[in-house]
Amino acid sequence: MLNSNLEKLEYVFASVSQKVKKAKSSGAKIIDMGIGDVTLPLGKTVVDAGVNAIAEMSCNEGFRGYGDSSGYDFLKDAVAKYYEGRVRLFRDEIFISDGAKSDCSGITDLFFGNVFVTDPSYPVYVNSNIIAGNFPIFLQGNVSNGFKPAPDGNVPVEAVYICSPANPTGVVYTRSELAEWVRYARRHRALIIFDCAYEAYITENCPHSIFEIEGAEDVAIEINSFSKSAGFTGLRCGYTVIKNERLKKMWKNRQASKSNGVSYPIQRMAEAAYSEQGKSEWRQNVAYYLDNAGLLLRAIKRSGTYCVGGVNSPYVWFDCGRDSEKFFDELLKYGLVATPGAGFGKSAKNFMRVTGFSSRENTKIACEILSEALKR
Amino acid sequence: MLNSNLEKLEYVFASVSQKVKKAKSSGAKIIDMGIGDVTLPLGKTVVDAGVNAIAEMSCNEGFRGYGDSSGYDFLKDAVAKYYEGRVRLFRDEIFISDGAKSDCSGITDLFFGNVFVTDPSYPVYVNSNIIAGNFPIFLQGNVSNGFKPAPDGNVPVEAVYICSPANPTGVVYTRSELAEWVRYARRHRALIIFDCAYEAYITENCPHSIFEIEGAEDVAIEINSFSKSAGFTGLRCGYTVIKNERLKKMWKNRQASKSNGVSYPIQRMAEAAYSEQGKSEWRQNVAYYLDNAGLLLRAIKRSGTYCVGGVNSPYVWFDCGRDSEKFFDELLKYGLVATPGAGFGKSAKNFMRVTGFSSRENTKIACEILSEALKR
Repeated sequence: MLNSNLEKLEYVFASVSQKVKKAKSSGAKIIDMGIGDVTLPLGKTVVDAGVNAIAEMSCNEGFRGYGDSSGYDFLKDAVAKYYEGRVRLFRDEIFISDGAKSDCSGITDLFFGNVFVTDPSYPVYVNSNIIAGNFPIFLQGNVSNGFKPAPDGNVPVEAVYICSPANPTGVVYTRSELAEWVRYARRHRALIIFDCAYEAYITENCPHSIFEIEGAEDVAIEINSFSKSAGFTGLRCGYTVIKNERLKKMWKNRQASKSNGVSYPIQRMAEAAYSEQGKSEWRQNVAYYLDNAGLLLRAIKRSGTYCVGGVNSPYVWFDCGRDSEKFFDELLKYGLVATPGAGFGKSAKNFMRVTGFSSRENTKIACEILSEALKR
Repeated sequence: MLNSNLEKLEYVFASVSQKVKKAKSSGAKIIDMGIGDVTLPLGKTVVDAGVNAIAEMSCNEGFRGYGDSSGYDFLKDAVAKYYEGRVRLFRDEIFISDGAKSDCSGITDLFFGNVFVTDPSYPVYVNSNIIAGNFPIFLQGNVSNGFKPAPDGNVPVEAVYICSPANPTGVVYTRSELAEWVRYARRHRALIIFDCAYEAYITENCPHSIFEIEGAEDVAIEINSFSKSAGFTGLRCGYTVIKNERLKKMWKNRQASKSNGVSYPIQRMAEAAYSEQGKSEWRQNVAYYLDNAGLLLRAIKRSGTYCVGGVNSPYVWFDCGRDSEKFFDELLKYGLVATPGAGFGKSAKNFMRVTGFSSRENTKIACEILSEALKR
């Protein structure tokens, strides 16, 4: 039988991207603050590492074929070093992958049943569970919980998805909030799937890793990425960290059966991204995006509307006081693209996401457009 | 509930690779003809394309973030051109991926139920179906069917896996044999998953693509790779071709939900591999591996034992006249590693696989060792 779940997926962004395409093709100048994609070029350290790795593969002595499906030790060691001071990681706990999206979706191979997903959330959590025949139970984010819903202690599930700092809202969970999730997971023997792809944006005193929370090692799977930190959205590299022995073996078997690992040059580039020089290069970019997000946050706040994110995240999430798809159309008339909340969940109909991933110049123009549009 | 299927996978190769590791660490000179991995370095055209693509990403104008999850048009066009003369392909029928293993295993997201797998076969077909909770039904390969079992017309299944040229046996299906599979699939509404990762090794007049067979377009999914042709085992790039409208939409949804596509530099390198200059570079390597396989084939044939492959494939498959794990141990004493058939299926206990992926010099030594060992 064909898996008709694959035909049930909703693509709320399809109409949005068609409208953007149409506007762009009309010749209008469009500032795109919709897509969650980095824009600044790769740092020199990363580029040099990639060029060297490819050169290695052009000669007999340096050529590399299949690597271990879980990644090269040199990159695992770089990841462990990156975590040093927060969490101690060992090589066999680290699984290199071609990005957080592959891991966030592939992780459904580990379990069957009901899962908690926050609403709004990154659509991959929902869609991958629908494909797998699992049942997402939505935890509503709203103004009263600051878009950080807590788990429902009366409902047992197989797995919970937490994204912190969150996409699309930009909010970050505190230590005590995460501890509540760990307590829930331990009580109900649920997995925590902790997506910290935006941890490099944290500026306040909040956990970067779920493993900073006591007891998480038995129940949590952490997924991190080089995309939003080192700008790898077009290079594809991420990793999953697992400490529980049984889960580790299961994921190892899954990866060995379904992947031949990540491109050697890309792994060398990722290693370089976590070197001291590499980090100092991309941290400048992260600071630039955060400054943009701060400008957006302050401009929207001045208009008096409810607004979160932008401090520990490149994303700013705000109440646009009307149906977000209508507000999207209004902004597009001004030449600004933002993302309607409806694309991230049913509870977010009146909310919008804007991102700090544009240029400073475009961000300043966007601030003016948003101030003007939110007045109406 | 955790997916305990992940704990049921058998790794017959684990003991083999431990023995090899031990032998190597003892300082003995080991000729490894076990692993199915290329050894010759990347061609200049591919290397240049990779270096240029990384350089592009180091400046504002050339930087690329997320690409389409199905790949860039430039690479789809290169694939369509590669197929020209055999099969006409359109962009929306081509899905670029990080390799045939990902697609061969990920394809289980499309269906539930029983599947036909040949025995012996590439272990990924079996393991990915076990993980998915499907039921593999084995079609026995043996001397009387030349290790090309035909489908059992009385048994309906959801999907059939065909690898041609086959791993591990090196045999290739003829046009009329493939037509029988297509007739079976159309009659039983089964999917054909056609793995042609070794098609570049075909020297005789046999189909390179399942879509050369009339009627296949409705039922077949073809998976191809740059690994064994252009030497991309360490770079990771492959593609899936689907012509049926419904299957195409399902796979598109699957890929959009579970992948962010393939690294931009790797896609540029794959494009270069399918350029005229690129092809002429890797075709020299393929010819070299085929010559090695021919030497092995002739040496083994001279010993009088049953032997297939080696003509349209880098693999030679032979009856070692005793338990293959014992013969493995015997060969290891001579310093030669070959792969016991038991790793590929239950019917292949007395068979071994050797590969043409070593150097000419090592291949000649291996021929002598095999001739000597098969005498006993």
